[in-house]
Amino acid sequence: MSLIVQKFGGSSVADAESIKRVAKRIVETRRAGNDVVVAVSAMGDTTDELLDLAHQVTPLPEPRELDMLLSSGERISMALLAMAIKSMGYDARSFTGSQAGMITDAQHGAARIVDVTPVRLREALDEGSIVIVAGFQGFNRDTRDITTLGRGGSDTTAVALAAALGADVCEIYTDVDGIFTMDPRVVPRARKIQTITSEEMLELAAAGAKVLYIRAVEYARRHGVTLHVRSSFNNNEGTLVINPKEGEQVEQPIVTGIATDLSEAKITVVGVPDVPGKAAQIFKIVAKTNANVDMIVQNVSAAATGLTDISFTLPKSEAQAVLKALQADQGEVGFLGLQHDDQIGKLALVGAGMRTNTGVSAKLFEALHLASINIEMISTSEIRISVVTRADSVNDAARVLHAAFDLDADEEAIVYAGTGR
Amino acid sequence: MSLIVQKFGGSSVADAESIKRVAKRIVETRRAGNDVVVAVSAMGDTTDELLDLAHQVTPLPEPRELDMLLSSGERISMALLAMAIKSMGYDARSFTGSQAGMITDAQHGAARIVDVTPVRLREALDEGSIVIVAGFQGFNRDTRDITTLGRGGSDTTAVALAAALGADVCEIYTDVDGIFTMDPRVVPRARKIQTITSEEMLELAAAGAKVLYIRAVEYARRHGVTLHVRSSFNNNEGTLVINPKEGEQVEQPIVTGIATDLSEAKITVVGVPDVPGKAAQIFKIVAKTNANVDMIVQNVSAAATGLTDISFTLPKSEAQAVLKALQADQGEVGFLGLQHDDQIGKLALVGAGMRTNTGVSAKLFEALHLASINIEMISTSEIRISVVTRADSVNDAARVLHAAFDLDADEEAIVYAGTGR
Repeated sequence: MSLIVQKFGGSSVADAESIKRVAKRIVETRRAGNDVVVAVSAMGDTTDELLDLAHQVTPLPEPRELDMLLSSGERISMALLAMAIKSMGYDARSFTGSQAGMITDAQHGAARIVDVTPVRLREALDEGSIVIVAGFQGFNRDTRDITTLGRGGSDTTAVALAAALGADVCEIYTDVDGIFTMDPRVVPRARKIQTITSEEMLELAAAGAKVLYIRAVEYARRHGVTLHVRSSFNNNEGTLVINPKEGEQVEQPIVTGIATDLSEAKITVVGVPDVPGKAAQIFKIVAKTNANVDMIVQNVSAAATGLTDISFTLPKSEAQAVLKALQADQGEVGFLGLQHDDQIGKLALVGAGMRTNTGVSAKLFEALHLASINIEMISTSEIRISVVTRADSVNDAARVLHAAFDLDADEEAIVYAGTGR
Repeated sequence: MSLIVQKFGGSSVADAESIKRVAKRIVETRRAGNDVVVAVSAMGDTTDELLDLAHQVTPLPEPRELDMLLSSGERISMALLAMAIKSMGYDARSFTGSQAGMITDAQHGAARIVDVTPVRLREALDEGSIVIVAGFQGFNRDTRDITTLGRGGSDTTAVALAAALGADVCEIYTDVDGIFTMDPRVVPRARKIQTITSEEMLELAAAGAKVLYIRAVEYARRHGVTLHVRSSFNNNEGTLVINPKEGEQVEQPIVTGIATDLSEAKITVVGVPDVPGKAAQIFKIVAKTNANVDMIVQNVSAAATGLTDISFTLPKSEAQAVLKALQADQGEVGFLGLQHDDQIGKLALVGAGMRTNTGVSAKLFEALHLASINIEMISTSEIRISVVTRADSVNDAARVLHAAFDLDADEEAIVYAGTGR
């Protein structure tokens, strides 16, 4: 008998009909002889509606009370889901984050899981019950207050439960068939990836792939949880996100997938004196604004001037604050000027096979050159190559590279509407 | 420094604006130098909407899950209320039933409070915080499950908190100015009662007065909690419901108030053999249907026939089941027939002063006789006289008696719309 953890997002439980459909799916898994633990999000737009209510009451809601408020959303969906399963003749019990032993730190709105003590869940499983757990929420042992985990919280809840209960697999239900080699809306011949390592998945997620949250993948990786990302609309196999053991030989394609990202801007600090410590000085100023700097590139200095340029990318929304901070300290740092460019696109090529294959960069440069796409920045990791292009070239670049690295499928993928969080 | 418990019902917190208004009221009480604990119901129709959702999922929702579902309603209102207070610069913290130590038995949907251990509330009060508690809900220590208290649950929560914390008064906010000598919609010259004993209040509530739930009054009486029923729309003094100590002399009017009730039906068992044990036999059959029998009257038997009639009243909705049960056992009991009358009205005259005053019944009979209103049944307690009349005479009876017992005010009362639960 296997233990399977399943996660259903808000769009999968948006109304009574959807809840009954999900209940049926859970019962099927149970009927196939598995123990089942389910993490469920709040129904449809409930969380946004509650946030809205809070802002009608006060522009700056107290974080503790906001968590108390938001945590009511999953109570509703989980109780309804448990009822629906019960009405099909199977035993089901719902548990809040605190009843499920989801212990977090005290950071309201973005709490991190510090321990999972699923005593009551085990009892319920031993009694033959299907277990439904509120996603997104936990509680802090010191303050005894309810907390929420922030964006992607329900995915993290599911993975944490799978780890704590030693589940065989953690199924993440979504409205797409799995992880694709590239967004099928951009590259119609994108292929569903059968298996991907969590390391690759992390790189893809960090590079803009939207299906899984980085935090949940990180947790799965750290605790050796296998994820199965699949559609809640059909019974197709989805994508397995696996954790090969150290030294384990997994046959891996050179390139597993491509991700693109249009949400970043580029800032270039022009004419920086090429002396030690200048980069450190600049990024200390940037760090003070809490900006999430992504790629950093420093040009070789022109020997004649003794000056260099430093470029970096960051979320568009954070650019203004950083520009302001740098301007304020221009005299002290001694650079000549600042350039701001929000018309860039980022593309990442990810594949664990890169480790043992040379020539990937060369092939990438060649392919983009043939397509007359100019590369503005490059950065690499062991299993990833990222490039920055003009924003309006990035989709073309993805199509060109998807073909060049033999990722194209024989047929076009079926694309669903929505994003299914 | 006084400790005041305040209860606000769903109509007082129906939207963001109402919540801010209630928050202001709470802050005023705090600013006047009091410690404040608030019990709050779910917003407006939330509870009904959640019930509706449950019934869309399954016609017979599992009681445990239904309580889990319904308990989310107060989480929303209490968190919003705490936020609103916080935004006014006062410290406030919200607590669920289980966080507040509201321990109940395990009867989902109609749980009874067995203990209140408000450790966290005391801590919060000691730290200078205003305490907001979810009404209507508790938890069971054995099953560790969330429970709800059923109808009037938030009133009961408030009273139980007042008792456990030794509050000076428990203020029940509603949309009327207090308890009136009679429903002002029927008797425009009804007067607001300044002080009433809990004993009288219980009789009035049992006789159909709608402002307070019997259960909450019973709890207040048992634990010596003083209630103050008042309007959330103005600052007028409302009605104090007090608990005079044994032997304490309180000057009491002969009649404190009148209540009417049109929700009952009368069943008459005709031609019952007048031998010992027959009444017991009949009410054993009635009891099996769980009917809530109210008044019972047995006529003196006609010596010639050796037969008597037994009449009783009960909620209209329960009449059919009782008639069926009695019919099934007609042969065994040996009565001649059954009469069912759902056009009756009940009126109760309540006053602790009746104990020491004779002649109240005589005055009542006289007044109704002069008004040509026929009395069909009579039952009395130490501090109450109830009569049954035709349904369409009961309001006339109330007006006649209101005048006869000098309850009429000089001016007509202001009547608000709604009933404000």
